[in-house]
Amino acid sequence: MSKAVKLIEYSTGGNLTEGNFAVITEEVPALETLKKDQLLVRITDLSADPHMRQYVSKGSYYSFPLEQTISGIGVGIVEASTSDDFKPGDAVSNPTMAWANYSVVDAATSVKLDTANFPLNAHLGVLGMTSFTAYLGLALAKPKQGETIVVSAAGGAVGQIVIQLAKELGLHIVAISSSDEKNKYAESLGANASINYKTTNDMAAALHIVAPQGIDIYWDNVGGELLDLILTKFKKFGRAIVCGAISQYSADGSEVYRLKNVQSIITSSASLIGFLFSDYMDTHYYTDFIAKFTTLVNEGKIKYKLDVVDGIEKAPTAFIDLFGGANFGKRIIHVADP
Amino acid sequence: MSKAVKLIEYSTGGNLTEGNFAVITEEVPALETLKKDQLLVRITDLSADPHMRQYVSKGSYYSFPLEQTISGIGVGIVEASTSDDFKPGDAVSNPTMAWANYSVVDAATSVKLDTANFPLNAHLGVLGMTSFTAYLGLALAKPKQGETIVVSAAGGAVGQIVIQLAKELGLHIVAISSSDEKNKYAESLGANASINYKTTNDMAAALHIVAPQGIDIYWDNVGGELLDLILTKFKKFGRAIVCGAISQYSADGSEVYRLKNVQSIITSSASLIGFLFSDYMDTHYYTDFIAKFTTLVNEGKIKYKLDVVDGIEKAPTAFIDLFGGANFGKRIIHVADP
Repeated sequence: MSKAVKLIEYSTGGNLTEGNFAVITEEVPALETLKKDQLLVRITDLSADPHMRQYVSKGSYYSFPLEQTISGIGVGIVEASTSDDFKPGDAVSNPTMAWANYSVVDAATSVKLDTANFPLNAHLGVLGMTSFTAYLGLALAKPKQGETIVVSAAGGAVGQIVIQLAKELGLHIVAISSSDEKNKYAESLGANASINYKTTNDMAAALHIVAPQGIDIYWDNVGGELLDLILTKFKKFGRAIVCGAISQYSADGSEVYRLKNVQSIITSSASLIGFLFSDYMDTHYYTDFIAKFTTLVNEGKIKYKLDVVDGIEKAPTAFIDLFGGANFGKRIIHVADP
Repeated sequence: MSKAVKLIEYSTGGNLTEGNFAVITEEVPALETLKKDQLLVRITDLSADPHMRQYVSKGSYYSFPLEQTISGIGVGIVEASTSDDFKPGDAVSNPTMAWANYSVVDAATSVKLDTANFPLNAHLGVLGMTSFTAYLGLALAKPKQGETIVVSAAGGAVGQIVIQLAKELGLHIVAISSSDEKNKYAESLGANASINYKTTNDMAAALHIVAPQGIDIYWDNVGGELLDLILTKFKKFGRAIVCGAISQYSADGSEVYRLKNVQSIITSSASLIGFLFSDYMDTHYYTDFIAKFTTLVNEGKIKYKLDVVDGIEKAPTAFIDLFGGANFGKRIIHVADP
């Protein structure tokens, strides 16, 4: 049998609870249901990502259908294959792996993984989408040595990598997160200063202390009010890398924070650069990233904190918790050992 | 005697009327009041620009002091000079020329003008700040042949140049303006389609008709609701050139339109590029612009519509009218013949 996480009710008006999900038990997909060039995968690990909020919200462009199993980035072991490119026992990742013990996926969107040198979950973490996101966004910002970068959600999956890459580039780094513990970790990775936004009343004053000359680069993982504030704090030619908006994923259309300071980018000659990692998979950025990170990991030169929650039945809670800042590092749901 | 336009009351709450200004008559500045390296200039033409709204608004970073003469970009003839670089009879431009018959300006910020090949007011128009703004912004957008560009305030000083440059680059051009007459002119300059926003109820539907595949480049002269709509209409890798926000200059802080769709630039991997032409004066963009536009003007290959209002006493009305879309072409106040 296979446990599976279904979406039974859409999130509306900012509410997301376990009641939106059901963990049910069903048959493992039968081998004869596989079409040509498909794989039956036994899942080992799933990635719980903030952007998935849009999948479970009503009226989003990306809304999942109700009553069906949620899917996202995951890794596992091939049990059966109708593709010439994969055989049973192969380790694979796929961007639409079912949140379940077993998933049927297309061979065309699956990637065979190196398990000799890296644990399977590294492909959801340090070698995965979040690291590429960090690498890519920083490359798009064209950072110059000595510039000041502010990194929001600094204790999160992407933030921790951004800080290490920024350190290597010789930037002055300010970390913003929801706890002193996360900030301490960010400083151990290279941040020069940090702000705990949960215990700081006046963020403008706090930013002025740590970046009195203003900000060159803002790594925006959160959107909303903090982005709006920072739009007024840019030095000339400042850049906001708009990577995520975790503070806004909980809001439905009527409640979303509306920015009043975008006009400020005229007087600072600043830019907002939005991006999805998936739009850059066929560019030199991706091949450069793989080469660089394989080396960094092999040489032990990059730290990567995983926040592992055990068991598919815990997946709804593990996901909901992301929006309260509960995770410290990249959140992964460990479903089974390889 | 010299007539001069004074700011006597700040604009607040979106109101701007002739009551905010006074046109007074005063003595021409005496020659003995000139400090070293200053010029007494007899003004011929002044530039009335939307961004000056910030100068006359209460609590703006750029607010002029009350009871003093307004200043802005202007041209005129040197009457007296304490600088070795200028002599009486020279034609000059200066970014802080008094809105008056006479102005005292620093030699250091003055530029000597070519009057042999171009009329004086060309330096406020086709060879001036607005053309450089158009050239620079389009260069920053890195346009590719065949892309779709939407140009707001298409009948304005900057818009008319953007359209001609976009045509030369082989872009598909959609003009947006406040009248059919302006749109007809925009089409004569090269626009492939146009929208009159004053007579269009559903801008989203109108944009879908003229750019069904979405928008690559948006030239934003207006800000506010139109920018917010277009943020959701970008193709992948779309770019908004954020050049001005005329729809927002009338609003004080409490009334400004707040953007709700900035987050959309994540999923479209799009960018917002803000800029002030003055931040790029010492770059290759400026020298490239001067070379290109001198040639274009000499060869008669660029059209430039001036909207000339006669007489310094009409300056307050000429300025206020800008915010109702009254101008058609670059608005200039003609003060006196050279």
